[in-house]
Amino acid sequence: MTPDPQPSFVLIRPQMGENIGAAARAMWNFGLDRMRITAPRDGWPNQKAVAMASGAGRLLDEARMFDTTADALADCTYVFATTARQRGLTKPVFSPEGAMKKAAEMIAQGQNVAVLFGPERAGLENDDIARANAIISVPVNPEFASLNLAQCVLLTAYEWQRQVAEITHETVDMAKTDWAENIEVEKLSDHYEQRLEEAGFFFPLPKSEGMKTNLRNFWSRMPLTRADVQMMHGVLRQMVRWKERDD
Amino acid sequence: MTPDPQPSFVLIRPQMGENIGAAARAMWNFGLDRMRITAPRDGWPNQKAVAMASGAGRLLDEARMFDTTADALADCTYVFATTARQRGLTKPVFSPEGAMKKAAEMIAQGQNVAVLFGPERAGLENDDIARANAIISVPVNPEFASLNLAQCVLLTAYEWQRQVAEITHETVDMAKTDWAENIEVEKLSDHYEQRLEEAGFFFPLPKSEGMKTNLRNFWSRMPLTRADVQMMHGVLRQMVRWKERDD
Repeated sequence: MTPDPQPSFVLIRPQMGENIGAAARAMWNFGLDRMRITAPRDGWPNQKAVAMASGAGRLLDEARMFDTTADALADCTYVFATTARQRGLTKPVFSPEGAMKKAAEMIAQGQNVAVLFGPERAGLENDDIARANAIISVPVNPEFASLNLAQCVLLTAYEWQRQVAEITHETVDMAKTDWAENIEVEKLSDHYEQRLEEAGFFFPLPKSEGMKTNLRNFWSRMPLTRADVQMMHGVLRQMVRWKERDD
Repeated sequence: MTPDPQPSFVLIRPQMGENIGAAARAMWNFGLDRMRITAPRDGWPNQKAVAMASGAGRLLDEARMFDTTADALADCTYVFATTARQRGLTKPVFSPEGAMKKAAEMIAQGQNVAVLFGPERAGLENDDIARANAIISVPVNPEFASLNLAQCVLLTAYEWQRQVAEITHETVDMAKTDWAENIEVEKLSDHYEQRLEEAGFFFPLPKSEGMKTNLRNFWSRMPLTRADVQMMHGVLRQMVRWKERDD
């Protein structure tokens, strides 16, 4: 197991081995590797689960098996139950985001947190949910709620990872280059203005100042890298060479 | 279609019908119903897609079919490409959250936003990605990245739904112009490629394909308005005229 403190994901009475394997993959995509399983319908180990899990098979080897929901939760201090519909049980209801935020806080305080996922067809029974401290409800389209087990695991794991990671929402893959400094953009702009002046681009005269301003504004408004600047110098130089070669 | 403005999800060369159906379900779980598809491997319509989509079959009936990535994006003004690995193309990279926040802002300003999803096995090609303005990268476990097509669609759709509840309104002073549509950028890119080919810019030969991809990536990465596109066509035309005038 990875050393990072994290919630356990508990599959309650899962039916198809493929779905157990898919749940393992969904977890491990987001760095979660504590799986518990109660009473899998087709016994354990399950070859279909292993086949589906592929690179996440370790989670199945290390999964802890239990007979009942109560057994599986015995050492947990806070339990969330995922459910698609209202159950008539008075309970806090969290979005996946809110739930994993709370989980991260509690785990940082040393609590042992679990998330329950019900069997594919019917979902958790009220008897399972009554053992949980709170509910997680994914805000799906009220006209069409059809998340499968692995997808529900995936969204919850994704939210866990969002809460614990220092996520930057936008970076730039810079492909071995760097942002152009202002002076480089200035020189690019000068280069174009000069050559285009020679080429007779700024015409007619009364419009020429406005055209130059637009061109300068164009370059400075663009998110240019050094590689871009060099390429655009090269484009212009080649056009001039072409003219001079006069072929 | 639902009347709510929303991004289009574009499946590029999807292979298995089951995955197209699962993608439709994933979208409709979060209220998205604008699907576009280019060149599905097994033709169209696809009975396996229909069987898997079940309650979301309407998305398949209404899906718009295209031959190429460029065709599918012709009327879009901003395009995200989902990709699992770095591509050596300079591009903004967003988390799903950051991307759908930006998408929501742009859509509120009237932009036409699309998200590209690659074929199951290999993902998008650089040639597809060069046509996008930005990349979406799901922050998966670096040791184990194994999201399938429908899961990638699901996470993106989930983030869209999370963002539309809380849109920050941002306006851009557009100075009597409008954002360029993808087809306009495509034509600008073609125009430069053609003329620079004549001018002998793509040299030496072994580097020419990479140079072309970089140039195409340059144009699609820039936040171009229609006025910008017209100006840059004008710049090139004038350089050619200059050459031909031969003064």
